[in-house]
Amino acid sequence: MTAFRKTFSSGGHASRSACRQTRQYSAPVDGSIPAAKQKYVPTTGTYPKGFLVSGTHVGVKASNTRFPDLALLTSERPASAAAVFTQNIFQAAPVTISRNILQKRSGEGIRSVIINSGCANAVTGKGGLEDATSMAASLDGLLPDSSSPDRTLVMSTGVIGQRLPIKKILQAVPKAVSNLENTHDSWLTTARSICTTDTFPKLLSMTFTLPSSPTIIYSIAGMTKGAGMIHPNMATLLGILCTDAPIPASTLRPLLTHAVERSFNAISIDGSTSTNDTLAVLANGAAGGQPVTSPASEDGRAMQKLLTDFTQQLSQLVVRDGEGATKFVRVKVINSPSFADTKLIASSIARDPLVKTALYGKDANWGRILCAIGYTQGLSSSKTVVPARTSVSFVPTDGSEPLKLVINGEPEAVDEMRAAQLLAEEDLEILVDLGGGGDGTGKEEASYWFCDFSHEYVTINGDYRT
Amino acid sequence: MTAFRKTFSSGGHASRSACRQTRQYSAPVDGSIPAAKQKYVPTTGTYPKGFLVSGTHVGVKASNTRFPDLALLTSERPASAAAVFTQNIFQAAPVTISRNILQKRSGEGIRSVIINSGCANAVTGKGGLEDATSMAASLDGLLPDSSSPDRTLVMSTGVIGQRLPIKKILQAVPKAVSNLENTHDSWLTTARSICTTDTFPKLLSMTFTLPSSPTIIYSIAGMTKGAGMIHPNMATLLGILCTDAPIPASTLRPLLTHAVERSFNAISIDGSTSTNDTLAVLANGAAGGQPVTSPASEDGRAMQKLLTDFTQQLSQLVVRDGEGATKFVRVKVINSPSFADTKLIASSIARDPLVKTALYGKDANWGRILCAIGYTQGLSSSKTVVPARTSVSFVPTDGSEPLKLVINGEPEAVDEMRAAQLLAEEDLEILVDLGGGGDGTGKEEASYWFCDFSHEYVTINGDYRT
Repeated sequence: MTAFRKTFSSGGHASRSACRQTRQYSAPVDGSIPAAKQKYVPTTGTYPKGFLVSGTHVGVKASNTRFPDLALLTSERPASAAAVFTQNIFQAAPVTISRNILQKRSGEGIRSVIINSGCANAVTGKGGLEDATSMAASLDGLLPDSSSPDRTLVMSTGVIGQRLPIKKILQAVPKAVSNLENTHDSWLTTARSICTTDTFPKLLSMTFTLPSSPTIIYSIAGMTKGAGMIHPNMATLLGILCTDAPIPASTLRPLLTHAVERSFNAISIDGSTSTNDTLAVLANGAAGGQPVTSPASEDGRAMQKLLTDFTQQLSQLVVRDGEGATKFVRVKVINSPSFADTKLIASSIARDPLVKTALYGKDANWGRILCAIGYTQGLSSSKTVVPARTSVSFVPTDGSEPLKLVINGEPEAVDEMRAAQLLAEEDLEILVDLGGGGDGTGKEEASYWFCDFSHEYVTINGDYRT
Repeated sequence: MTAFRKTFSSGGHASRSACRQTRQYSAPVDGSIPAAKQKYVPTTGTYPKGFLVSGTHVGVKASNTRFPDLALLTSERPASAAAVFTQNIFQAAPVTISRNILQKRSGEGIRSVIINSGCANAVTGKGGLEDATSMAASLDGLLPDSSSPDRTLVMSTGVIGQRLPIKKILQAVPKAVSNLENTHDSWLTTARSICTTDTFPKLLSMTFTLPSSPTIIYSIAGMTKGAGMIHPNMATLLGILCTDAPIPASTLRPLLTHAVERSFNAISIDGSTSTNDTLAVLANGAAGGQPVTSPASEDGRAMQKLLTDFTQQLSQLVVRDGEGATKFVRVKVINSPSFADTKLIASSIARDPLVKTALYGKDANWGRILCAIGYTQGLSSSKTVVPARTSVSFVPTDGSEPLKLVINGEPEAVDEMRAAQLLAEEDLEILVDLGGGGDGTGKEEASYWFCDFSHEYVTINGDYRT
């Protein structure tokens, strides 16, 4: 683990308490990072070999006169790639283009990713498709083997329904290429340039080894962004992972799908699935070693565990920075007959505005949690949730005793003082035990990470376009 | 139509404009009705023969020292009844009890309804079932033919997970019975006694005739309540309709189901389906005439149209009083291949917090509308929504020209001045034209009525239990 991980786990709590009273929930206009969020920004990192990145100011939004909003990421050698995309029917132009490129190349020979913030290039018709194509092609044309097309993935994030200022962007690409580096600062600037209403750049890196080559130190790095329209369905708004381990696309795809189902597809800010969700992973093999030829191999299994853990950490940074959020909540549903149903139930709680406003108000209104479980749509069986087997607790993240709220469908006499203590903390876990469901034998579990609904969320989203 | 209907349709607009700046969105603590909401409260009414009602103070919530919170409604003669109930798995005790009573009696011979506000009697285990049973039985015991059980339906609304103060309630029932009357004031007090965070009582009445007996003047009256945890699934939080027309239960049931699907099941405040949703209709035949023996008969069809129109008007009062709401919005989806899919799409827009905060912020951010259409869950076919056939407009409620936002998937250059004018109004219609879907032939349509998400909603729900 990198220096950042240490900062995250040790220094975090002290500063969290100290800063609670002065925390700012919206991105300051001067681009500075609120004091309470600084602990989530790494001060150093271990980045994969053979990748170069840059973040450059373009001014996609006319009001942005100085912050970087064009991100490039390139691999010095052809990389394997996989991606998951939004399931929204109105998928944005860059989603269509990136999906086509990965299909054409079967995920092999990918060299780079180009991303703008400030405009989503979504619901922009044929013109939008042309813009996304020319963004990707402009970077292809500047790479060493410039005659080979379709090697660049493209992503956009920002307002829906407006055309990109494509000339401005294309004119800036050569400068963005000349800015490419592999330093901590360049990674941080790149992560920042994909942000919209985020209050801090979301960047993680770590090193690892694989069983077949224990002496090779591999690296993985990832960046993502929030902070609203977040209820990913197959992917998050935008995320990029890259590693110098040798993993062909045929292995990367199932690894990514499994990891995302337990990370980016298990977070919610506001229940709104974006048109632009894209999470891509690139593996260039620059660190050497044996290719990971199957998810079922020993290396494959090790990589799966690592990728799932890494994407969980990365996706949780999105929740930490949810628009207006004051709480970071995990809902864990256990002893369920079905993994899919378990996720639906967790998602129903994570989306419920009454649960979310009660958390904001520090109100132990657990009836709303039961209510949200009970109206979950799309369950595969009416036996998944049996009221008389259902229990709910608040689990403190400091390891102290859980607070039982409902046991087997019967309400407990709740210690309101203890509840108030738990709800005063930024972090909370809600544990839902389905008692095995209808026949009592279910053992599946799933988690969702989400945040509360605050006045600030309404302020941010009542006036977003201007 | 009653005097209220005239007030509603003529006097409404002038006072709406005048009051906008001083409108209060929360219920004042003194129980007074905010000036801007007074136009929705009828000053007179035409109530069905043979029904008596009362609203009585009990103090179900200890903090309520003077407002009525126990409602009774009885028919002087046995009535036919039908009801729809919540689909929430954690259905409240009164839902279970009322459903059983209707089944036992096949909907015939029902005499009364007893309702408390202040406590939902939901997730209260076996004790809660006993409480609901004894509430119903207490009224049965005081009716003229007191030896016949199971003639009273029971409903509760309020906080989930707390037991009823059942002794207090049972002690108050004789007084509530002695208060029974059939005056406009008693109907208004009764409607008020079922309210929770509502800012005004929701009561409607009107007269009608049926084709088979044009000289008989029938009446129908209804009351309902809001104002949060509203996204009904088969019913709304609480609603009671009664008429003196002779309609047996076998006809009432299909009439009610059809009407509710187009009214109470087509509104959303916050997307949260309550544990207590119940909408019941009683028909006592006190006005005489021929029984309506089938929904397909001439009388049946007339009654269906009337009931659908009436439930739409009544359900819309719930949206008018949505917690913290500043807007009243209809989303109408037309030219769709499937009615069920059309409702899902309308519901997805009506629930989306980004659409709702944009409306609150008077921001014509139509991209969020497209986004919400695109992530609709549970569509029966991927051909229902075809981006290149989808158009969206804002339709002013004053009859002036619609504002086209997207035509066949291509964005229009939006006149922002005009958009700002439309969004300054309290009422708005969003028209989504699916262009017939995949094969261009779809002609189904459905509407949803919803409100915006404001700071006040967060305030109300951050601290509801206290």
